[in-house]
Amino acid sequence: MRNVAVVGAGMTKFGEMWGQSLRDLALEASLAAVNDAAVHARDLEAVYVGNMSGGGFASQEHVGALLADRLGLQVPAVRLEAACASGSVAFRNAYLAVASGRYDLVLVNGVEKMTDIKTDEASSVLMSAGDDEWESSIGLTFAGQYALLARAHMNKFGTTREQLAAVSVTNHKNAVGNKHAQFPFPVTLDAVMRAPLVADPLRLLDCSPITDGSAAVIIASENIAKRFASPVWILASEQGADTIALHDRTSLTEMQSAKVAGKRAFETAGLAQKDIDVAELHDCFSINEIMNLEDLGFCKKGEGGAFVEQGHVGIDGDLPVNTAGGLKAIGHPVGATGVRQITDIVRQLRGKAANQVKGAKTGLSLNIGGAGATAVVNILSSEMV
Amino acid sequence: MRNVAVVGAGMTKFGEMWGQSLRDLALEASLAAVNDAAVHARDLEAVYVGNMSGGGFASQEHVGALLADRLGLQVPAVRLEAACASGSVAFRNAYLAVASGRYDLVLVNGVEKMTDIKTDEASSVLMSAGDDEWESSIGLTFAGQYALLARAHMNKFGTTREQLAAVSVTNHKNAVGNKHAQFPFPVTLDAVMRAPLVADPLRLLDCSPITDGSAAVIIASENIAKRFASPVWILASEQGADTIALHDRTSLTEMQSAKVAGKRAFETAGLAQKDIDVAELHDCFSINEIMNLEDLGFCKKGEGGAFVEQGHVGIDGDLPVNTAGGLKAIGHPVGATGVRQITDIVRQLRGKAANQVKGAKTGLSLNIGGAGATAVVNILSSEMV
Repeated sequence: MRNVAVVGAGMTKFGEMWGQSLRDLALEASLAAVNDAAVHARDLEAVYVGNMSGGGFASQEHVGALLADRLGLQVPAVRLEAACASGSVAFRNAYLAVASGRYDLVLVNGVEKMTDIKTDEASSVLMSAGDDEWESSIGLTFAGQYALLARAHMNKFGTTREQLAAVSVTNHKNAVGNKHAQFPFPVTLDAVMRAPLVADPLRLLDCSPITDGSAAVIIASENIAKRFASPVWILASEQGADTIALHDRTSLTEMQSAKVAGKRAFETAGLAQKDIDVAELHDCFSINEIMNLEDLGFCKKGEGGAFVEQGHVGIDGDLPVNTAGGLKAIGHPVGATGVRQITDIVRQLRGKAANQVKGAKTGLSLNIGGAGATAVVNILSSEMV
Repeated sequence: MRNVAVVGAGMTKFGEMWGQSLRDLALEASLAAVNDAAVHARDLEAVYVGNMSGGGFASQEHVGALLADRLGLQVPAVRLEAACASGSVAFRNAYLAVASGRYDLVLVNGVEKMTDIKTDEASSVLMSAGDDEWESSIGLTFAGQYALLARAHMNKFGTTREQLAAVSVTNHKNAVGNKHAQFPFPVTLDAVMRAPLVADPLRLLDCSPITDGSAAVIIASENIAKRFASPVWILASEQGADTIALHDRTSLTEMQSAKVAGKRAFETAGLAQKDIDVAELHDCFSINEIMNLEDLGFCKKGEGGAFVEQGHVGIDGDLPVNTAGGLKAIGHPVGATGVRQITDIVRQLRGKAANQVKGAKTGLSLNIGGAGATAVVNILSSEMV
């Protein structure tokens, strides 16, 4: 397998983008990545799109072909889906295609247009990432699933309501000044604690929002990437799995998918947790960032809540996490998030982030699909190892 | 890139499978492929699923994770979508992942469960493969799109209604005795000519049906594949593109996607049209098989109708096409079709097909997405070239 690097990255504003359709968003982010890389769109050899439910949210499937068409390209285009990890599985399969030798320069886009249908309909579409026969058909929602995980974590490890809230407080703080963020403002611990209950123990400010948006990166094979000023190398892109239904798991307080993907990614990259300078974790609900930290081995199982509360994940902590605001404050257009995470890691590794982590050379992203049936861990570095 | 072969293939019966859900179908086909290959499911390293709209047809996205889960596997699983070419893009990306060196043994499944919603709803879901802003939202259907292509072809080249009908007659004849086929019976030219009009000039018996079903293949890297009795080698898997909306095309009588994918596939395989012993073409509507024959260079542009009418594509012709019945008679579970085509080519190249083409060594499949925005051409051979 050949070495592969990210040579361009871009994104749209995330939010309720009433004036932009699915295709508008995907096109804008893609052109931002093209401009950032300073390549010609006509040199792109393939288009990989991560999109969870263009059909459900926007009556549009065949999104890969649609984006290639809008870019004026007649190249192989495909959409990949693994629920909220759709962006990362698109990135990973594009990476494998370039690593295979088949392509040298490929566009990866993640996109979702979620706000054109009613909120209860959007909730149903989202829950189609769960188990239709055993979960969604009897009324379980994603907030409900993560509430079960949160309650189990609290019961087993004594994780507190305040620790959950600390996740949202930290991520919102990081979003201040992020012009791409849906909610670029701080929230207080008190505000999170008093927010309306969505699914006990999760409150409104524990939950990432419904969002329109798109992000894109351009990846290149080693020989091509070396011609660029600041390629960001893909040291590992690994995927893990867990059962789709929660009731099939032996534990509700960990995700096998994240554990396995993380373990493999560290092995492939030849790195350990201490080598990660900055991370993007999947805070779709506050509890998940806590579980992510534990499952990736950044702290011991059960200690994720305290790890956050003690400030380790803050911008000045040992492991700055979600330095641009995370899913909670930037927003979570589900198919876009995995690519957006990489976009923000790339900014950090180039030394160009708004909340720059000084000297950041190596970054990690973890993108979760559903309630953990899919997980993808990417490790990127400004230096080829 | 490494050589890759198909080492196992299987499928469910295609039809209105009221007793089987999306997951049941995908699992049955996958286990059939596992049994055919005589491998252990636990040795599969990844799962690639082609599925157009699990969300739209069956309220179930995250189909890759779902199938892996049902197989008892915790391996990287992903769904790929390119409308009716979803099965082939799953196959192609799995092929690239194995060729890259990342995996040695991978499952590719194609599946669609289409009959649990009303026919008009299914028609809307299908049309989400077109251009939502310019085509589907103003009422164009897939039958309508292909009717436009058929009328253009008739006007420009004098293609006759009888020639369109000859496609269906030939494919239905081939399906007789196919226990997997939705419609394993012959139809007469007269029956096609008198069938109810769907979208002028296309009649009911020009149109592939709405179908439930799944097909699966197992692919392996060269060193692994050589241990199997009859590996079928993937000589080429190439993808082409055309505009998603018909009004953006310079010609309605050809698909750039099929032309480019075909040209690249023949170049990659180092073969010419005369080397193909058996082909699977995309007869979603009768006109499309005629256009496919021309776009792949099996006959001159405009002569596809006569080529079919003269019997060249019959089981005893120079180029037997859709020898198991095609989309028309086997049925067209949209995400499954691309994989089903490969399953039937594999049967032919092993010499085990019901309608066996004597001495068939090299086969081709062409799978079209939408009205041609995506096309994938695979060339397979019983001999490694």
